[in-house]
Amino acid sequence: MDNPVILITNDDGITATGLRHLIHLMRKLGDVVVLAPDKPQSGMGHAVTFSSPLRLNLIASEPRYLEYSCNGTPADCVKLGQKVILKRKPDLIVSGINHGSNTSINILYSGTMAAVLEGAMEDIPSIGFSLNDHSPDADFTHLDKYILSIAGNVLKNGIHPYTCLNVNFPARQDEDIKGVKVVRQGKAYWDEEFEERKDPRHRKYYWLSGQFRNIDSGLDNDEWALANNWVAIVPVQHDMTDYGAIEKISNWNFKD
Amino acid sequence: MDNPVILITNDDGITATGLRHLIHLMRKLGDVVVLAPDKPQSGMGHAVTFSSPLRLNLIASEPRYLEYSCNGTPADCVKLGQKVILKRKPDLIVSGINHGSNTSINILYSGTMAAVLEGAMEDIPSIGFSLNDHSPDADFTHLDKYILSIAGNVLKNGIHPYTCLNVNFPARQDEDIKGVKVVRQGKAYWDEEFEERKDPRHRKYYWLSGQFRNIDSGLDNDEWALANNWVAIVPVQHDMTDYGAIEKISNWNFKD
Repeated sequence: MDNPVILITNDDGITATGLRHLIHLMRKLGDVVVLAPDKPQSGMGHAVTFSSPLRLNLIASEPRYLEYSCNGTPADCVKLGQKVILKRKPDLIVSGINHGSNTSINILYSGTMAAVLEGAMEDIPSIGFSLNDHSPDADFTHLDKYILSIAGNVLKNGIHPYTCLNVNFPARQDEDIKGVKVVRQGKAYWDEEFEERKDPRHRKYYWLSGQFRNIDSGLDNDEWALANNWVAIVPVQHDMTDYGAIEKISNWNFKD
Repeated sequence: MDNPVILITNDDGITATGLRHLIHLMRKLGDVVVLAPDKPQSGMGHAVTFSSPLRLNLIASEPRYLEYSCNGTPADCVKLGQKVILKRKPDLIVSGINHGSNTSINILYSGTMAAVLEGAMEDIPSIGFSLNDHSPDADFTHLDKYILSIAGNVLKNGIHPYTCLNVNFPARQDEDIKGVKVVRQGKAYWDEEFEERKDPRHRKYYWLSGQFRNIDSGLDNDEWALANNWVAIVPVQHDMTDYGAIEKISNWNFKD
């Protein structure tokens, strides 16, 4: 049987340590094609590039291994990787390992998870990996057995149709990771703060920052699992309908 | 009682006809603050700007009306509008009227809907309006009674907590719009195509385009409603957990 074909991307860019570590691991599992942004794309959400041209840059071509960068977003990388490089669907898409967690609502801001949702929309098994450590030189080695196990399970079992996985790992601690919890997306929001400054010409500008507010007291969500030193896996689908609201809103009066 | 405070944004930019029409309508319902991107931001998804500074540009200041542009994304506009301009939560956020529909999975790519989801995350009643007509000079006048009725209902009734509305309108046709359907998000995907060209220095580049593929045969989804000349309202929430997959994936073997 042929080796599985694995497409790898991320949003921290082609040189990120987390991407390099994920490449190292995935080469144990199959034939690998890397296509990652040529610069950091954090916070790009599900942006796609249709108003300017996309370019590919070949970095490495070896047996069972191809590596490219491109000037697009993570979602663009998944599209280009399939249609221009592979000219077929890969057997698995993996994205990351992100420097920083993507729990809860951060899935909507995350370029890492946009790439993964892009795969899920086309019913390709897809996994996003994120580490709860923002530092550029974060240690990823304590994740190896989990990443290989999760990717191996997906290659073997598949996932529900059109469903992908959002996997968040605790940063390295004195204590070993406790194990894996399959959980729901936690409820939270960002409480934004803007820092006002003045430029040398006395014109105001603002820096966006903020506090992440967890408003979920459950013990079955990704924030809780991560905070308690578990690997948090959320199965993610992209139907955002609030089914419980349909009937009520149908009864509104739209005539007057 | 005070007038409701309505924050308006979009992703086509401050000069777009659809935005101007929405401003005109919302001024009938309350005190209006407009904060929209200074350039088109279509396809920006839920991008946010934290790596470069944001600037505000005051355009109009009248009784019960403020208008600003900024150099950020639609999601940035909602954050800045609340925290820097209003310094409180608005009673209603409206986004649009988008030139082009945002049915089905397009909610994930849409800057218009990112702004609306941003409001929903903070439990502010929020509505995205989109017209199934991409032309810059599209006719929006056949929507007036529906927009006023939907926004009026939301101001009066609220929406489910943390739920927002994705409203798509048919383009003007010979036949009047049939009415309103409250429906679910349709199942579809984009089948991408890349057009390869060469620049004057003989280097390849690619233009992203594609075909929207509707794979939903139901009569209760937004694609169907829009195609059949109904106003399509989808109540949208942002928990993307696939609850049906949790138990199955929990049974995977993560030990070996």
